[in-house]
Amino acid sequence: MPETTPPVPMEKLVSLCQRRGFIFQSSDIYGGLASCWDYGPLGVALKRNLKEAWWRAMVQEREDVVGLDAAILMQAKVWEASGHVAGFADPLVECKQCHLRYRADELKADKCPACGGELTQPRMFNLMFKTFMGPVEDEASITYLRPETAQGIFVNFENVLNTTRRKLPFGIAQMGKSFRNEITTGNFIFRSREFEQMELEFFIKPGTDEAWFRYWVNERLNWYVKLGIKREHLDFHVHEHRELAHYAISCHDIIFRFPHGWAELEGIANRGSFDLVQHAKHSGKSLDYYDEDTKEHYVPYIIEPSAGVDRSFLAFLSDSYAEEVAGGETRVVLHLHPSLAPYKVAVLPLSRREQLVTAAKQVWADLRRHWLVVYDDAQSIGRRYRRQDEIGTPYCVTIDFQSLEDGQVTVRERDAMDQIRVPIAALKTIIADKLAGEPLFTFTHGGQIWKRGEEEKAKAP
Amino acid sequence: MPETTPPVPMEKLVSLCQRRGFIFQSSDIYGGLASCWDYGPLGVALKRNLKEAWWRAMVQEREDVVGLDAAILMQAKVWEASGHVAGFADPLVECKQCHLRYRADELKADKCPACGGELTQPRMFNLMFKTFMGPVEDEASITYLRPETAQGIFVNFENVLNTTRRKLPFGIAQMGKSFRNEITTGNFIFRSREFEQMELEFFIKPGTDEAWFRYWVNERLNWYVKLGIKREHLDFHVHEHRELAHYAISCHDIIFRFPHGWAELEGIANRGSFDLVQHAKHSGKSLDYYDEDTKEHYVPYIIEPSAGVDRSFLAFLSDSYAEEVAGGETRVVLHLHPSLAPYKVAVLPLSRREQLVTAAKQVWADLRRHWLVVYDDAQSIGRRYRRQDEIGTPYCVTIDFQSLEDGQVTVRERDAMDQIRVPIAALKTIIADKLAGEPLFTFTHGGQIWKRGEEEKAKAP
Repeated sequence: MPETTPPVPMEKLVSLCQRRGFIFQSSDIYGGLASCWDYGPLGVALKRNLKEAWWRAMVQEREDVVGLDAAILMQAKVWEASGHVAGFADPLVECKQCHLRYRADELKADKCPACGGELTQPRMFNLMFKTFMGPVEDEASITYLRPETAQGIFVNFENVLNTTRRKLPFGIAQMGKSFRNEITTGNFIFRSREFEQMELEFFIKPGTDEAWFRYWVNERLNWYVKLGIKREHLDFHVHEHRELAHYAISCHDIIFRFPHGWAELEGIANRGSFDLVQHAKHSGKSLDYYDEDTKEHYVPYIIEPSAGVDRSFLAFLSDSYAEEVAGGETRVVLHLHPSLAPYKVAVLPLSRREQLVTAAKQVWADLRRHWLVVYDDAQSIGRRYRRQDEIGTPYCVTIDFQSLEDGQVTVRERDAMDQIRVPIAALKTIIADKLAGEPLFTFTHGGQIWKRGEEEKAKAP
Repeated sequence: MPETTPPVPMEKLVSLCQRRGFIFQSSDIYGGLASCWDYGPLGVALKRNLKEAWWRAMVQEREDVVGLDAAILMQAKVWEASGHVAGFADPLVECKQCHLRYRADELKADKCPACGGELTQPRMFNLMFKTFMGPVEDEASITYLRPETAQGIFVNFENVLNTTRRKLPFGIAQMGKSFRNEITTGNFIFRSREFEQMELEFFIKPGTDEAWFRYWVNERLNWYVKLGIKREHLDFHVHEHRELAHYAISCHDIIFRFPHGWAELEGIANRGSFDLVQHAKHSGKSLDYYDEDTKEHYVPYIIEPSAGVDRSFLAFLSDSYAEEVAGGETRVVLHLHPSLAPYKVAVLPLSRREQLVTAAKQVWADLRRHWLVVYDDAQSIGRRYRRQDEIGTPYCVTIDFQSLEDGQVTVRERDAMDQIRVPIAALKTIIADKLAGEPLFTFTHGGQIWKRGEEEKAKAP
């Protein structure tokens, strides 16, 4: 796979994120909390846009998917049925000398990598965060923070089916926080103990699962490409049989060229009937589906595209980052898809002269009714353009003295750095057109990115 | 205060929510998890709209507020500094006979209300959910699920100030889950152990706090009224000195006439400098603000409007619920503000004849690019209108045989039940205009709802 430029070093991204307010270390003033992160003003804006783009593509624009938002705290029985209580564990070893802890399956030697000390025998360590509900801390009150959003969907399958009167195939989508007490974390927001997922559970008739699996792999790859990730920075990892999780019939990871190397961005799994069978068994409730067309009862199969919000955030950030020489100077620019950019527009009065500020603030107020818009009047226009480039703002609107005479302003575009002069009265419409013209909003489902000659197979069955 | 009609009984709301897929009991198939709730397809749509309306009014449309999204897991030191480890507790008593547990401060007698048994002496029970981070369960690894989102803002004050180069007054807004291990819960989603908050922390110069406090009380009351809550179902509870939390200089609750009675919907508190002083002391970091205009150093005061997503959800739902006699039949209708309604439009082919279905699905696909839109072709048009009324869909678009000839469809409005005939080509624009014409989008800050003659005082200082 050709790599045109090397990925941006992680340190540069971390530095940009902290300097401009995308991401801060959690509990920063207390020295930080390992592997938990707070999203600052720009980070929360980008994250909201990213989640909105997913929800739009996966729920709003589709005929066959509805949304759900289940609680983080669930009955322990859910996690017994799913296999998490018994099996969601990693082998933990500890150095007898320096007491650092490691995942045994990630170590390449049997001595401590830090000090060379001897390691303990591995013990299985469950990754679920445990807490107690109610005033007594005993076995009966144990509750877990969900380690995945998926189970909230499975246990609501019947509720959703009955209240929406849906027929197969149909999906239930959910976004929300999950928690895993990872032994080793790291690579910035790539692996953290608190993270956010975007999961779809797509319920289908057994036998149609291979076709739907291919469809969703293609669909999800498309989503990243349409939102600006370079195709050559995406690839697949096809799980071999021995790699498959206990619930999966097959699984493809979409992998991305992260700053720290190629790694999983999203997993698409064919979970078969495993989940509904388990929950039917443990709850004593039938989770069969009655197919009115074929007059059959069966347990649906499930195709699951499971994406991480934080990993996607990191992917979009790192893939859009560029250092470019322009006019003898190097500019840092985030070529973010406009639908993801934290601010859609920056409003810049040429100077702090009162007339200009008044006019600029009026433009700012008008545009804010439609988008998140930033105002900046500090330092030279060139410096301000650079500041907006660095955070990915697609359009800068400059108000100058000429504007007060002719009612026109300059709109400067981030990527090509072209400038056009437009009437203030038409500004809203022009920017709306520019933003609406972006690929995201003309994205039709089922594309041709999967592999040449395979298009037909990847279409919705 | 005049009450025109009695509030809808809670059972009716619960029944509607379960029947139509607004809200399900968490872990329902396992018998439920007390006081945790899952939002179904309609519930998540309404909740997303509600949060979006808050974010729009509190962040996007304002000059002086930025967003944040801090982690749920924070260092224990944060909760020591805030006073939660020592003081966030309720007095717990248990019946020696039937072992039911109660909050001592909520009991009216000293015998068990269930069986008349003798109660234990009260002991203070901390309401924070505790968990352990990392593989060892000891004192050093204790972490808490945040019981409020506010502290995530306080500890990031300096980070946000430095990266956004803001000047006082300015605010930081956050939405997210919080957790409280309540002894007694209930009244549906009114008090639950897992809930979602929408909090603004507004940082100001000491001495301007009374004026800003009044401004925010007014502003927040306005928000509910503009989104459709009847003014006569809102009131204030002004905290007397003995009721105030340890951090508060003053506090007004906005109370609402819930199905179970008048109760707190949102609290607006003047927190003074308590929080920043505490975190400065415990972290050893200065959290002073340098005021460039007056050349002073001081610790900002904070005004906090703190709203609950779930309580607001319940308030909007119950206040919009009506049973109306129309054409000899009783219809249930949710008169939800269009910006909150789960679906903006329902598309209804008159029958399942192929030509109608094809035309209707084309209209559906076009509208879905802009809004969440539902399609329904089951049973009579009258029944379908009723189903949409019951979930608050503001507009129904009916495609009939005439539509195939003249390219026009019928748009039926939920509240007045008026019907107009419009060209399909103009449908999108007409609905967009109807939705955009709603009060939400022309809402200007600082209104006249507070109290006659008090408008001036409630304006932004």
